[in-house]
Parts: sequence; structure tokens; C-alpha cells
Amino acid sequence: MQPTIGFIGLGIMGKPMARNLVKAGYSLVVHDRVLGPVEELLGLGATRAASAREVAQKSDLVITMLPDSPDVDLVVAGKDGVLEGIRAGTTLIDMSTISPVVARALAAKAAAQGIEMLDAPVSGGDKGAISGTLSIMVGGKREIFDQCLPIFQVMGKNIVYMGEAGAGQVTKACNQIVVGVTLQGVAEALTLGAKAGVDPAKIIQALSGGLARCGVLELRGPNYLSHTFQPGFRVRLHHKDLSIAMQTGAAYGVPLPATSLVREFMNALITMDRGDLDHSALITLIEDMAGIQVRAHETGE
Amino acid sequence: MQPTIGFIGLGIMGKPMARNLVKAGYSLVVHDRVLGPVEELLGLGATRAASAREVAQKSDLVITMLPDSPDVDLVVAGKDGVLEGIRAGTTLIDMSTISPVVARALAAKAAAQGIEMLDAPVSGGDKGAISGTLSIMVGGKREIFDQCLPIFQVMGKNIVYMGEAGAGQVTKACNQIVVGVTLQGVAEALTLGAKAGVDPAKIIQALSGGLARCGVLELRGPNYLSHTFQPGFRVRLHHKDLSIAMQTGAAYGVPLPATSLVREFMNALITMDRGDLDHSALITLIEDMAGIQVRAHETGE
Repeated sequence: MQPTIGFIGLGIMGKPMARNLVKAGYSLVVHDRVLGPVEELLGLGATRAASAREVAQKSDLVITMLPDSPDVDLVVAGKDGVLEGIRAGTTLIDMSTISPVVARALAAKAAAQGIEMLDAPVSGGDKGAISGTLSIMVGGKREIFDQCLPIFQVMGKNIVYMGEAGAGQVTKACNQIVVGVTLQGVAEALTLGAKAGVDPAKIIQALSGGLARCGVLELRGPNYLSHTFQPGFRVRLHHKDLSIAMQTGAAYGVPLPATSLVREFMNALITMDRGDLDHSALITLIEDMAGIQVRAHETGE
Repeated sequence: MQPTIGFIGLGIMGKPMARNLVKAGYSLVVHDRVLGPVEELLGLGATRAASAREVAQKSDLVITMLPDSPDVDLVVAGKDGVLEGIRAGTTLIDMSTISPVVARALAAKAAAQGIEMLDAPVSGGDKGAISGTLSIMVGGKREIFDQCLPIFQVMGKNIVYMGEAGAGQVTKACNQIVVGVTLQGVAEALTLGAKAGVDPAKIIQALSGGLARCGVLELRGPNYLSHTFQPGFRVRLHHKDLSIAMQTGAAYGVPLPATSLVREFMNALITMDRGDLDHSALITLIEDMAGIQVRAHETGE
């Protein structure tokens, strides 16, 4: 028999993920502070619970998808939280992007109660959540990962087992560092190229063949060329993720100078009311300082 | 009839490029301060000239492939240089990586003498030079580019016309910015991941699916996993290229904060006697500070 899944956190990411689970035939018990998404899921056949504790009481497996470390800590280990209601033998999967240090602490707390916990952050954004094509990076016990794989496969495509508890969050932090720093490199390159008179469309084309090729140029190229920064992935979320990376660097003793620089530029964007733009808007800071807007040239050459 | 090509600068890059031109049937007049490579080319049927001026006198088209802006400036516009010997109507192609500002100044000087000049820096390293598969980014007049295309095709594969004089060098600077900054992001991510206990081989695998994917992870991944930094592309050359990028940023008025940071880290590597390692050795600075060496784990998981 299919397990009953508790799902806590029905935001931009969580709601479509929960929807895909219902559509795949799982019984869902859902909880969120906001009523709209809860009612939408009830309409699809899910059951409601009044607290995280009640979700845990009614489920064989609990998934959390929340904004940040303190939210997960509160919902899992706080008053009326998951660990107050959960039975020994139940699995807890946190799919939020949070600090690896917090993920490991929560996994240890859960283990002390006989609860196996996986950290399984995702990438791929709301589009990936809707289409069930998220990338999922998973930390925890291998056998628990194997048991949960069919559930992950409902929500994602590229599902990688990374190692022990916290390894999924560590990998997500690495991912966000590489993306953030690459976005900054591309921003500097394209602004320089454009102000020195070269068509940025041609620069992107020329760079796509060699060592400079990257997902940022491929997937965000149109943003730069049209100078539109609709998310995509919001600056304020990437800023949060780089803050997690910096905390992780501090906890494990790894200095992150370029990450730090990019995090501060994202902080600047938030201050300047650009926090809800796509993270490729990092280029607007360099553009502002250089007094130019990068855009594809109208004609060829 | 095929033009006689003058080739000045038979270093690690220039020698194999000249060799490919000879093999393709072109008559070559060569010059270099070092005798060994000159004699090697003479053995293949090339002719020697005693100065850059003499090369120009004897050739229908002159190619320069030299270390840095001052070298090109001296060989082209200095005493006994190309512009003293060259005939009006001859084309001059500089394939060195130099400052776009210097490239534009030299193109203007050449034009004043009725000489068309192309800037055509390459990427792909000595391997690409040997195999004739370089990427070539070309600035100058479109019609001159079209005339020279058969010659470029002997030396390279991905040959892109970028725009007016200097546009090739601008593009090369953009390329080196993106590669350098990405190398730094990957260095920080992998050191953090490894010190937080995750197998870097798995991190590289997990990051290869999405926005974080990049040529650096694909092509330099083995360097990181084996902790060996044989060039490849030497730190001291990339440092030179980022210095050109910084000069260009200063000339055109574009601040380059991440580029500047990476340039200084490359400066540190040179100071620490690591200038002849591959540029992926940027990771060794973060490793040293974190007190860890990144390596693939021996076993799975």
C-alpha cells in the first residue's frame, strides 16, 4: 500500500510538488499557514491538518518545503512541531534549502527519536516543480534514500544521492556558489564588452564554444540581450542561499571571498528594490556604475 | 596564387600555427629571437628573415603571435618593425592576446599607412594550436576577414567575426573574465563541499545538470579530483590576460570587482611559485586557507 504523505509548506515550490504527489495517487495530509493553497489541495483530494504535529500524527512520511533554516527548525523541532507527533519508524524529508549545519542538527535530533531524516533540497525553480523535473540532491542513509526514491521520482528527474545527512544541503550550497559567482563573471564580461563596442549577442556566441561556456550564458543569455530580468530565480532567494553558504563556510572553516562579494552585491540589489528581479540582474549594478545598458545590437555585425 | 605569409613569433603557440600553414602549402617567411624554432621551420621549407621589417618586405600578409601588448607594439610599430617594411595593400594579422586599446591604436597607425590590420586572438591552448582547432575571435574590416578566412581555417575551427578593429581582443578579454571568475567560484564550492564531507566527484556530477554546469567543471574536473594542476593554461598567462581586462575596464570605464579579486589571487599564486601550474590551481589558495586538499573519495558514496 502507498504511504500517506504529510506535506508542510505549500508555497511557490511546495504547492506544485504536493499537487504532483496527489496526481500520482498518494494520499496527502497538508498544512500551511496560508489558506488558499491548502484549499486548492483539498479540492484535489488532500486532507488538512491544523498543525505540523497533526500532520506527523496522520502520516507515514513527512515532507517539509519551507523558506529558510529557522522555519524548518520551528516546524520540525518547535512547539506543535513534527517531532512532537511523529511515530518511530517514520521518515522525515526536508526539501527546503537550509543550512547544512541545521540539517545535520535536526537529523541528529530526529535520530534520537528513532526517526530517519533526509535532506533533499532541489533546483529547477517553480517551472521544475510544476513539471516534476526538479533536480534533487539528497543526504541521509542510503537505504532510506532508496526507499523514498519513487516519491522523489514524482517530483524530479535528476535525483542524486550525495552521502550522509547534510550532504544534500552542502551540495545545494556548492551549486548556488558556482551559479552566483558565474553570474557575476558574466555580468562583468558583458558590460565590458558592450561598453567597448562589441555586440553582446556575438560575445555570447563566441564564448559558447570553449572553457567559458556555462549554463548562465545558455539559460540567461536572452535576459542579458533583451535587458529584462523577470524571474527566474529571485535575487532575494539567491541572497538567502549565499548567506547559507557563508554560514557553512564559517562553520566548517572555509573562506569564500568571491561568494562573499557576490552575496554583498545581491544585498545591494535588495536594498535598491531589485530583490524580486531574476538573479541575472546582478549585471545592473555593473551597468549602473559603468553608465551603460547591455543589449543586443539591432543589426548584424 | 597563394600569398607568401610572414610569421613573427614562434613560441608555444606560434610554432605549431606556423607549421600548420607550411603543411597547408603556404610559403612562409619566419622570424623569432630564438633560433631553435626558426631552424625547425626552415627544415620544413620556410624562409628566414633577420627582422620584423624584413619579414614584412618579403610577405603578402604578416601574422604576429607574441606574448603581450608591448611586444606587439615594438614588433609592429617599433624600429625595424613591420610597419617600416610593409607595402600598402598588405594585411597585418595580430593573433597575440593583447590590450584592445593597443590593438585599436595599432590598427589606426597601420590604416594611416594604407595597411589593413585584423586582431585575431585565439583560445584553445597549445593543443588547439597543434591540432589546428583553435577558436579565433576576429576584429577588423569584414571584407578583410573574409579574404583571410582560408588562412584562419588552417589554424582554427570556431572562427567568429566580432566587429571592428579591437573587437577580437575585447571578446578575448570577456572570455578570460568568465573563465577566471568561474574557476574561482568552482574553487570555493569544491573546497567547501569537500571540507563539509561530501565527495567532490559527486558534487561535480550533481552540478552538471543545471544552471551551474560549465566548461570549467567539465574540462578541469579531473584536475580537481586528482589534485594535479599540469597546464593546461598557465596561471601567469591568465594573470596577464586579466591584467589586460583590468586595463580595458579602466580605459572604457567599467569596474570589474570579481575580475580584480581573481587577478589578485593569480598574482598570489605567481608569488607563491605556482605561476606555471594550470589556472585551476586557484583552488590551492582556498585549500591552503581551509587546511584541506580536495580529492575524489576513494570508494563510492
